[in-house]
Amino acid sequence: MLIVMHHQATDPQIKQVKRTVEAMGLRAEPIPGSMRTAIGVLDNQGYVDDSAIRELPGVREVIHVSKPYKLVSRDFHPQSTVIEVAGVKIGDGQPRVMMAGPCSIESETQMLTAARQVKAAGGHILRGGAFKPRTGPHSFQGLGVDGLKFLSAAGREVGLPVVTEVMRIEQLDIVCQHADMLQIGARNMQNFDLLKEVGKLRHPVLLKRGMSATLEEFLAAAEYIVAEGNSSLVLCERGIRTFEKATRNTLDLSVVALIRSMSHLPIIVDPSHATGKRPLVPIMARAALMAGAHGLMVEMHPEPDKALCDGAQSLDPQMFAHLMQNLKKIEKFITTLDGLENA
Amino acid sequence: MLIVMHHQATDPQIKQVKRTVEAMGLRAEPIPGSMRTAIGVLDNQGYVDDSAIRELPGVREVIHVSKPYKLVSRDFHPQSTVIEVAGVKIGDGQPRVMMAGPCSIESETQMLTAARQVKAAGGHILRGGAFKPRTGPHSFQGLGVDGLKFLSAAGREVGLPVVTEVMRIEQLDIVCQHADMLQIGARNMQNFDLLKEVGKLRHPVLLKRGMSATLEEFLAAAEYIVAEGNSSLVLCERGIRTFEKATRNTLDLSVVALIRSMSHLPIIVDPSHATGKRPLVPIMARAALMAGAHGLMVEMHPEPDKALCDGAQSLDPQMFAHLMQNLKKIEKFITTLDGLENA
Amino acid sequence: MLIVMHHQATDPQIKQVKRTVEAMGLRAEPIPGSMRTAIGVLDNQGYVDDSAIRELPGVREVIHVSKPYKLVSRDFHPQSTVIEVAGVKIGDGQPRVMMAGPCSIESETQMLTAARQVKAAGGHILRGGAFKPRTGPHSFQGLGVDGLKFLSAAGREVGLPVVTEVMRIEQLDIVCQHADMLQIGARNMQNFDLLKEVGKLRHPVLLKRGMSATLEEFLAAAEYIVAEGNSSLVLCERGIRTFEKATRNTLDLSVVALIRSMSHLPIIVDPSHATGKRPLVPIMARAALMAGAHGLMVEMHPEPDKALCDGAQSLDPQMFAHLMQNLKKIEKFITTLDGLENA
Amino acid sequence: MLIVMHHQATDPQIKQVKRTVEAMGLRAEPIPGSMRTAIGVLDNQGYVDDSAIRELPGVREVIHVSKPYKLVSRDFHPQSTVIEVAGVKIGDGQPRVMMAGPCSIESETQMLTAARQVKAAGGHILRGGAFKPRTGPHSFQGLGVDGLKFLSAAGREVGLPVVTEVMRIEQLDIVCQHADMLQIGARNMQNFDLLKEVGKLRHPVLLKRGMSATLEEFLAAAEYIVAEGNSSLVLCERGIRTFEKATRNTLDLSVVALIRSMSHLPIIVDPSHATGKRPLVPIMARAALMAGAHGLMVEMHPEPDKALCDGAQSLDPQMFAHLMQNLKKIEKFITTLDGLENA
Repeated sequence: MLIVMHHQATDPQIKQVKRTVEAMGLRAEPIPGSMRTAIGVLDNQGYVDDSAIRELPGVREVIHVSKPYKLVSRDFHPQSTVIEVAGVKIGDGQPRVMMAGPCSIESETQMLTAARQVKAAGGHILRGGAFKPRTGPHSFQGLGVDGLKFLSAAGREVGLPVVTEVMRIEQLDIVCQHADMLQIGARNMQNFDLLKEVGKLRHPVLLKRGMSATLEEFLAAAEYIVAEGNSSLVLCERGIRTFEKATRNTLDLSVVALIRSMSHLPIIVDPSHATGKRPLVPIMARAALMAGAHGLMVEMHPEPDKALCDGAQSLDPQMFAHLMQNLKKIEKFITTLDGLENA
Repeated sequence: MLIVMHHQATDPQIKQVKRTVEAMGLRAEPIPGSMRTAIGVLDNQGYVDDSAIRELPGVREVIHVSKPYKLVSRDFHPQSTVIEVAGVKIGDGQPRVMMAGPCSIESETQMLTAARQVKAAGGHILRGGAFKPRTGPHSFQGLGVDGLKFLSAAGREVGLPVVTEVMRIEQLDIVCQHADMLQIGARNMQNFDLLKEVGKLRHPVLLKRGMSATLEEFLAAAEYIVAEGNSSLVLCERGIRTFEKATRNTLDLSVVALIRSMSHLPIIVDPSHATGKRPLVPIMARAALMAGAHGLMVEMHPEPDKALCDGAQSLDPQMFAHLMQNLKKIEKFITTLDGLENA
Repeated sequence: MLIVMHHQATDPQIKQVKRTVEAMGLRAEPIPGSMRTAIGVLDNQGYVDDSAIRELPGVREVIHVSKPYKLVSRDFHPQSTVIEVAGVKIGDGQPRVMMAGPCSIESETQMLTAARQVKAAGGHILRGGAFKPRTGPHSFQGLGVDGLKFLSAAGREVGLPVVTEVMRIEQLDIVCQHADMLQIGARNMQNFDLLKEVGKLRHPVLLKRGMSATLEEFLAAAEYIVAEGNSSLVLCERGIRTFEKATRNTLDLSVVALIRSMSHLPIIVDPSHATGKRPLVPIMARAALMAGAHGLMVEMHPEPDKALCDGAQSLDPQMFAHLMQNLKKIEKFITTLDGLENA
Repeated sequence: MLIVMHHQATDPQIKQVKRTVEAMGLRAEPIPGSMRTAIGVLDNQGYVDDSAIRELPGVREVIHVSKPYKLVSRDFHPQSTVIEVAGVKIGDGQPRVMMAGPCSIESETQMLTAARQVKAAGGHILRGGAFKPRTGPHSFQGLGVDGLKFLSAAGREVGLPVVTEVMRIEQLDIVCQHADMLQIGARNMQNFDLLKEVGKLRHPVLLKRGMSATLEEFLAAAEYIVAEGNSSLVLCERGIRTFEKATRNTLDLSVVALIRSMSHLPIIVDPSHATGKRPLVPIMARAALMAGAHGLMVEMHPEPDKALCDGAQSLDPQMFAHLMQNLKKIEKFITTLDGLENA
């Protein structure tokens, strides 16, 4: 941590800062400059809370060098982590994984049809929402536990592991019974109690980036889960909220490449929620793979025009089959590129 | 809802859209224009899910006229609502309310000292956090139930109602036993399960705007609570996330004036989290009152430099006392202004 | 400047960074920590370009302590600057200034009518746009030089100085002949050539914040003008672009208070462009004054419903008269508040 | 245009809106609904200014159907446009184009060296900045006309067309003498006077998206140029400003795919400014091609560590050579993908 003093900061002010830092059990090293003094804070073992310092007289700015995450960082864990979901491996050196299925589970038939289509096209993990977070209370909220049953039955029937979103702690037991992987949605990325409880389990977790979460906050949320003991964690970029409304969110593919260099955890991309527009999904899926994503999560519905949720961003079975063929081609193609330290 | 067709949309495409709308039990009224056709959707009783329509061939855009909230809107409930928290009234025609206290409850003594200072200066409701949402798992997470006890005891001792944040459904019982008002934090604004459970209670609720929530999403979140039967609800603007990092968040005071005209619910402002900087808190508090806020929530700590959380944005007791004096002056002053339909 | 090295940075990497810094004529001071080494850069006389350093092997991050502005900062110029526009003073200790008039000059009659209404209500400076920046080329682009003549004639007739926007360097001569103050619009805040030319003049300048400009970039743009010798400069906050579309922009009043503490230049607020909605203008104008603005710029049109530009955010003469009365009351009231170091 | 009335709007209010619309020479068609009335505006030949309507009594919202651009839209010009820059073709069905070179021209030798490296690796157009827009006035501002001469000489020497940024109207003549393509930078995207003047020329233009420009504003800026008669225009996505600061900007690749479907103009991507980080440039370049970009603009410097500007995001010659090899592979690979209506 570096504490930057004001140009006119007095000696007693600098000493007070030094004392405050030392009272926190840390070392303070003044660095006099030609225009102002800065004070380096040393000996900390990680992120330091700067509340006691930031508004001391004479302090202009506090700059953090340590980050609020450590366990998920490559700094101290250089080797890439590979996650396994009921036999499907995700991470460096593994085939790109495809998680697909309808936004929401609507019926036993719809789910089974979708499962067969995902399997037939070569998908690896089946998705489907039983508990749906909807902006307003007057929209369809999901089938709940019945939906879970339809999902797990469909997965068993076609031989695919299943992933589904969990929204509250009380649902963890029942969701764990039915799903091979737990999804934490964007709106719950900073639901810290949920993160902690999920961290106590040994179920693989898919953590989606919050729509206004910085890279640092995203990794700090992942740290909550790993700190509790569960390092079976896959990250998911799904678009951030910006001023641009031409797409549902703004897909931030640069962050995928950055996370691959900063964290040892795998990261996948959800182009369906990122764009909100069906024709863009296959295009951004291809771009995501090229940016280094370890896999994709896409919405596919047997009949998108009749979907109860997010039909406009769901692929139909034929588009999905094309996408799977392309995924396999891209996977092979990437290995022929030059200078690919990072992908 | 208005469905705008492409310039080159064909007659069969227009007819397919019409059929799809009618299959939803609604009326479709084509409006031919000189450059393109639009199709008005009528007879809906509220917000219509457009998933089935948005990507039909020939459709360029779907425009919503109805909003995903209705119960919290002035459209159907023109009269302003006044909320009561253990005798303290909040809303139009009531004295501006001040909720104050430390970010986190640290000890029985700290809480009691703070309570006496809030009371002495004329504050109306005591705040304090027992369960703390922190970006990273390595920061202080709050005292939990012990904190709740210190808070309620301090409130009783000085004769102030208390408000505290609830982060998970299992905490609702214990928090209701100790607090007069439940706070839903910004990170949980779209934790819809929590909203629904809180909606089933009769405890007053303070709902903070999510840091990337639009006005529409904020009101839709409030709708979740009211739709379950709890209309004892106060809204709170606390800054939104933007590209500007000179302040912790960007305080959006225009939304306060807008909400006063669009909703019948009271709205207060939290200048502490909005700015993150102690010297700005009293200034933005004054501005918030002038923008029409029904009250304020500010962080005050007996010794901010020793605070375990958010010390840099906490007022000290003297600054708080000044702010209270100003609040009373401003309240009186506002009544002398001209053309104040809206404040 | 502080250069933060990676956890595993090697000694040769640290030495290479040291050499690179020294080759720039600066001093490099390594600060070993328990987890990583940082390197302080000393002896720089201002902002240092970090391009040569940021991607050297082993470098994790470069942190700037100096800012890309100095002349406009209070650090080296603690005393507040008061600007004079043809006899009207703007800044600390002066009456709050009101600049008002139509968005665009439409005719001699319209301009003269507006001028009389501004004067009658007690406004201080007359505004009107002759050259209009419009999003699309098919909207009204302003009357040009004819408009300038109508504006200056109207100002002379009623005895008010005039301010108008200048969009290109070739217009500077003619605009200087007709206007007492030059306005640089938000879209041109980083039109650095225009800033430099305006900096060579001695005409007072009103610089509007760009819609996506950070505080730092805003002050750096001001620095361009002052660095060329023109320190007769007033800043103007007019709303920034965020995800929230309920208002035209998001008015960032916190920045007004921040700029008052960081810079010696006066700052005013434009609530018309910030909100884009007439009913919000007087409310946010009041809030802006309370946040410490030295004045306001508002759009007023004799008949807003017939305006060729921005009618929806223009006040009518009666609303404007109310606002002026309130401005005077608020100005007086503010002096009665407590603890007002900053306002 | 659709005018949505308030729930409680009265008949006289609806009639007043109808009259106002008709006074603009348009047709107004009320559409009564179960909850409110909407009024369709017909017979307009393009975007309608809604200033006179938006704040009429009873009006809740005005929704635009027409867009502020028409000439650049595929709606009325379905066939893709191919641009030619001194023999190099850009657009659908053409080889992906690579524009490369240093951020700023620093000397005759540096420019010539860079030119040879770009040519040797297979680049198509040489870039280099003579007039540099820099955030602060104390940074290197470019070599000016001398730089232009070095650039054009280097281009001639190696046989590559050259592109360079023009920042002010007075520079147009001299820049046209030396450059084959004029670049309008992000900060000038809404410098409408510059756009108009460039529109009067017949030189090819590269228009960069403003850092806070919506898709609609970007296309409307392009419309300014085309409306003046110059349709030799290439668009360039270079990242937008968001809350995320881990990269310099947020590269918005979805917009590339969207623009390909909405406009007939070619679009390229600049991954250097978008990311600001050298290691990310080749990765995002690959992703951009996969998203459908017609080409790339990247910064390459013979010795990035000695660059006077943007060294941290400049490729070195070897990385650039790798990127060129990959570009050719990707170009060929893309033709083998399935379902590629849009790329």
